Amino acid sequence: MNPQRTSRGILVCVSGPSGVGKGTVIRRLRSLEPGILHSVSATTRPIRPGETDGVSYHFVSRTRFEEMIAEGEVLEYDEYCGNYYGTPAAPLEEAVSRGTAVVMDVTVPGSLAVLERMPDAVSVFLLPPSFEELRNRLMRRGTERPDEMEKRLEKARSELGKASLFDYVVTNDSVEAAAGLIQSILRAERSRYKRQAGIEETLIQTE
Amino acid sequence: MNPQRTSRGILVCVSGPSGVGKGTVIRRLRSLEPGILHSVSATTRPIRPGETDGVSYHFVSRTRFEEMIAEGEVLEYDEYCGNYYGTPAAPLEEAVSRGTAVVMDVTVPGSLAVLERMPDAVSVFLLPPSFEELRNRLMRRGTERPDEMEKRLEKARSELGKASLFDYVVTNDSVEAAAGLIQSILRAERSRYKRQAGIEETLIQTE
Repeated sequence: MNPQRTSRGILVCVSGPSGVGKGTVIRRLRSLEPGILHSVSATTRPIRPGETDGVSYHFVSRTRFEEMIAEGEVLEYDEYCGNYYGTPAAPLEEAVSRGTAVVMDVTVPGSLAVLERMPDAVSVFLLPPSFEELRNRLMRRGTERPDEMEKRLEKARSELGKASLFDYVVTNDSVEAAAGLIQSILRAERSRYKRQAGIEETLIQTE
Repeated sequence: MNPQRTSRGILVCVSGPSGVGKGTVIRRLRSLEPGILHSVSATTRPIRPGETDGVSYHFVSRTRFEEMIAEGEVLEYDEYCGNYYGTPAAPLEEAVSRGTAVVMDVTVPGSLAVLERMPDAVSVFLLPPSFEELRNRLMRRGTERPDEMEKRLEKARSELGKASLFDYVVTNDSVEAAAGLIQSILRAERSRYKRQAGIEETLIQTE
């Protein structure tokens, strides 16, 4: 029906410093655009009460995860507190080739790794409204020790410094506004000529 | 207040074959985003009843128009039925540098001329839902002679062939949807890192 709908989908990487609210903004975006698929990460950490395998994460063994890395089956991965976290490539690439829009919540280095493998992905960097606000959000997440807090803030500063490597920068001053902006970015990107190449020829030929 | 608001504005060129509905879509877009300025063209054709100088067009003499061309005071111009039509550069460039979003209804060659002079402008090509529909719209505009109609259709085919030179392609199957998509494009473009370069440094420095 809609000629705007491209045959190929689109991958949107949403990144930004820890504490900026990626997860909340993505949940709101998915309620605005229910057709969007959320990429499910794989992890080696044990499943927690209330979590569902394949929904919260794909829970896999360390041996399996390392096999996935060796075989190039993960788009990006990271090790955190002794556990691997990463994005299985196959389901995501299949969804995009089926025409689905996929959004992923990904670390800054993870996002850059994804863009290298899928250069037509769209990258969005979420900024906090102020550095003070980021500090408050990190504190509310309950980091008690001052030295650990300082380490987190140092990491946030270094992550913020990578914003220029992203296509878009969205300030998360309100979840509603930030999600709405990412929705606009998704719509705009779908309308790019390069994602609809040849559409005018089809039109002339079916005259 | 809103850190998303860039200091520099943005120029959106809306182009497409004659009869595609550029004017109607732009009017709808301006009602969605009242802050958008509509660029007013200059012309040498006589003012018609109901038109207002400076609103419908800037009505100027042929001598003045040719002076404007010679001095580089028009971004683009065209001659049609013995009259000049063109876009005065100064008011538009001033509005963009003040931070305003400006939308212009411009011919395909006009759009390409503007992009050459203002490479950070955004170009949108409006497509009809089908070639048949474009033919119907042109007929409704009241071209009676079949040979003239054929000439217009030939021109439309050639204009459609230029779609690949534009950033975005939007199908005008409904005025509402097309205007909404251009609004999304405008919002997305405002969120591009390159239009907010350095925003993350300001954030870190005002820590």
